Amino acid sequence: MLIGGAEDKLRGRQILKRFVKAAGGPEARVTVIATASEIGEEALRLYEGVFLELGAAYVTGLHPTERGQADRPESTAELSDATGVFLTGGNQLRLTSIVAGTRLHQALHLAHDRGAVIAGTSAGASALASHMMAFGQPGATPRHGNVQTTAGLGLVDGTIVDQHFEQRTRLGRLLSAIAQSPSLIGLGLDEDTCAIVHSNHAMEVIGRGAVTIVDGSQMETDAYRLRGRRPMMVSGAHLHSIPAGYWFDLRARALFHDEGSGAAEREASE
Amino acid sequence: MLIGGAEDKLRGRQILKRFVKAAGGPEARVTVIATASEIGEEALRLYEGVFLELGAAYVTGLHPTERGQADRPESTAELSDATGVFLTGGNQLRLTSIVAGTRLHQALHLAHDRGAVIAGTSAGASALASHMMAFGQPGATPRHGNVQTTAGLGLVDGTIVDQHFEQRTRLGRLLSAIAQSPSLIGLGLDEDTCAIVHSNHAMEVIGRGAVTIVDGSQMETDAYRLRGRRPMMVSGAHLHSIPAGYWFDLRARALFHDEGSGAAEREASE
Repeated sequence: MLIGGAEDKLRGRQILKRFVKAAGGPEARVTVIATASEIGEEALRLYEGVFLELGAAYVTGLHPTERGQADRPESTAELSDATGVFLTGGNQLRLTSIVAGTRLHQALHLAHDRGAVIAGTSAGASALASHMMAFGQPGATPRHGNVQTTAGLGLVDGTIVDQHFEQRTRLGRLLSAIAQSPSLIGLGLDEDTCAIVHSNHAMEVIGRGAVTIVDGSQMETDAYRLRGRRPMMVSGAHLHSIPAGYWFDLRARALFHDEGSGAAEREASE
Repeated sequence: MLIGGAEDKLRGRQILKRFVKAAGGPEARVTVIATASEIGEEALRLYEGVFLELGAAYVTGLHPTERGQADRPESTAELSDATGVFLTGGNQLRLTSIVAGTRLHQALHLAHDRGAVIAGTSAGASALASHMMAFGQPGATPRHGNVQTTAGLGLVDGTIVDQHFEQRTRLGRLLSAIAQSPSLIGLGLDEDTCAIVHSNHAMEVIGRGAVTIVDGSQMETDAYRLRGRRPMMVSGAHLHSIPAGYWFDLRARALFHDEGSGAAEREASE
């Protein structure tokens, strides 16, 4: 579950409710990882409170602040029976710098393979992709040098994920990233909006905004020969803006059409 | 010449220089129309000064503030030997409310048919399209009801033009407009950037930013059944971000590839 940040934590809490439900509802065993956040302990307490209120059986928190801590066998033990893992927002580079390549990273993959629901909001969402939007400048026009990407935690293959998408005008940097990596699919998540990537590569959208998808497979660009801050030529990007209630096939890179098959997907994956 | 607003008027003045050159350079006879602007007289003086500095032979200004003035035979006389007409920025709805359907509007078409260069900046650029982006809300995500379009002056057929595009985050409203009118092609002009639409539908880009093109011909949307301010589903929009130095074929809706043919277009149309 990739969440665009600023998800509702007080009222309907649709996205967080769905997370607890997917993690088993009254049987949910949730681990919150707050490494991305500068106010990690506070973030842990906040989410622990919300998930307990929403009916999870057991909620625990992890907040490694250096690689040594993330590499301790104890942190992996925390995840060994988790049915849901939630990565908070903050700074995605801090999260991957501390967690990537450690035992905790491995444990996250094992939990995912075992069927646990992995969710991330804001920085946590960007970090879940195979290729991570690390930082960049805002703006609608793609420009040379306006985006830096690194390796993400790799829970969602073949993607690059940006968040607070509409609120911070991030289309330009997502287009730049995809122009430079046309094999990837770019997902831009609005705030209080969640892309649920099911095991069959079906993506379901819930929440208040939309998920912008940039497909660069038919794209032409001069990205490879620019210098300085010049605008990038990008021609033929396929763009999709998918709000709640729609399903998108990330492998076929097209909207799901058959309502029947949509329902079947839903059944197959929940 | 469709200019995204805030074009350089002091230093290199690349776009305004190109306008004077296309209007005949030392033989240029330019008419500025400042109806869009709230400070019309000031805008007239500003552009008159710049165009004379850039070597135009003769510059005159028109500033009708009501339809009766725009319908006077004298205003059409002003345009009868103009080789260039320049529409200032301001409020495009004021411009079209006063000028559309009057003798001045007719005279503008006659000048265009005769081969005069017609340029508009900001509101003036939006007004030149067949379908006019009248007003709307900013944001990157298309939403129901976030855009109002009206009839433009119709100098550039089959288009809808938005300006200050990157600077004011206007992709969402352009996507909404195209989702509701998929036969049109959407042009989003960054500031200090100009789309030169040649008679053969070849579009050349000059200036500092880029021109974003939204082609909705392959698009699917639920625009027709939304209510309220809900995000719109848009799938399969073709997006192009075209900076200075590139040419785009508005009829084929594709980049010009052959450098040779690009040069030929250039020669044929200048």
